[in-house]
Amino acid sequence: MSVEDRIDKQFEFIREIDKVKEIVRQTYVVSGKRKENDAEHSWHMAIMVLILNEYSNEDLDILKTINMLLIHDLVEIYAGDTYAYDEEAKKNQKDREVESAKKLFAILPDDQAKYFWDLWLEFEQEKTVEAKFARTMDNIQPLILNDATNGKSWREHLVRLNQILQRNKNTCKGSKRLWDYSLEKFILPNVDNGSIIEE
Amino acid sequence: MSVEDRIDKQFEFIREIDKVKEIVRQTYVVSGKRKENDAEHSWHMAIMVLILNEYSNEDLDILKTINMLLIHDLVEIYAGDTYAYDEEAKKNQKDREVESAKKLFAILPDDQAKYFWDLWLEFEQEKTVEAKFARTMDNIQPLILNDATNGKSWREHLVRLNQILQRNKNTCKGSKRLWDYSLEKFILPNVDNGSIIEE
Repeated sequence: MSVEDRIDKQFEFIREIDKVKEIVRQTYVVSGKRKENDAEHSWHMAIMVLILNEYSNEDLDILKTINMLLIHDLVEIYAGDTYAYDEEAKKNQKDREVESAKKLFAILPDDQAKYFWDLWLEFEQEKTVEAKFARTMDNIQPLILNDATNGKSWREHLVRLNQILQRNKNTCKGSKRLWDYSLEKFILPNVDNGSIIEE
Repeated sequence: MSVEDRIDKQFEFIREIDKVKEIVRQTYVVSGKRKENDAEHSWHMAIMVLILNEYSNEDLDILKTINMLLIHDLVEIYAGDTYAYDEEAKKNQKDREVESAKKLFAILPDDQAKYFWDLWLEFEQEKTVEAKFARTMDNIQPLILNDATNGKSWREHLVRLNQILQRNKNTCKGSKRLWDYSLEKFILPNVDNGSIIEE
């Protein structure tokens, strides 16, 4: 590939991923005025890593963790966002996301396509320290927003405590301290006030 | 400060910076449907660093550059966005942003407040390799979006070529290759088609 082709492909990818800004999640921004999108969500979590990495269960590579979070939702460009508590949509979520990742990362030069693919797979597999901590961020960030908006999204979807606990069964694997904090500060008070259905 | 106070302050900061998602810039997202906000802009540039760092004039610390871009617009939470070509608003921009940075970063524990303050100042001063490359990203990203939307924002503000060249006088300092590319691909074709006023 010529140097010109390489840089053209890189800028084509940068334009294509702009679409992430239009993939809307179910969680509301703190003001409650509207739902947040994947780009905002990824940005928020990258800064959370900067601030909260001291609570990781194990020493972690901060750059790798941030990169994982910056790119992990890119696969939703063609696969769409799958709501955490939509059991039907979750059935074929993995297949849709693999196809989307292949199509999207193929825009990049081969070496960078491989880097993005490997990093996304590592996040999905949740085995490395960085992937576990990134997942903790991905699970905790919407808890913060839900709590800050009086459980707006939980109330709209009639979310139950056991669904949240199931969704968060691996949150402690990245950081026991952050999971304990989130349970105490963001989840249980919202069971008490009725935002989360206890059953 | 107790461990409990520390983590409370960190989460307070994480909630406060959510406001960046509602600070709207003058540039449109690639679809042209709406203007982008600071959180989306910062996310986009962080990924651009991942993809384009090979074109830096000098070797750079990727993590530091990404962190700089993730946080550089936080000061707009209390200072507001200042449009690149609004000469009146730019007069007191620096003072407003310094006050905003002091107020915002003070929410964090002291060590992290100092880290964020130093990183923001380093970006503003444009002296280090990382700050120069981060500025190159900050200047190029809106060129990409403007070009992709047929110069929508340029046309709305009747932007002239000399304003863009003045704004970009330091873009080459982070990457000569990326500035040459941007001038050829994103700026000059839009002078030819009238999106940018030549005078």
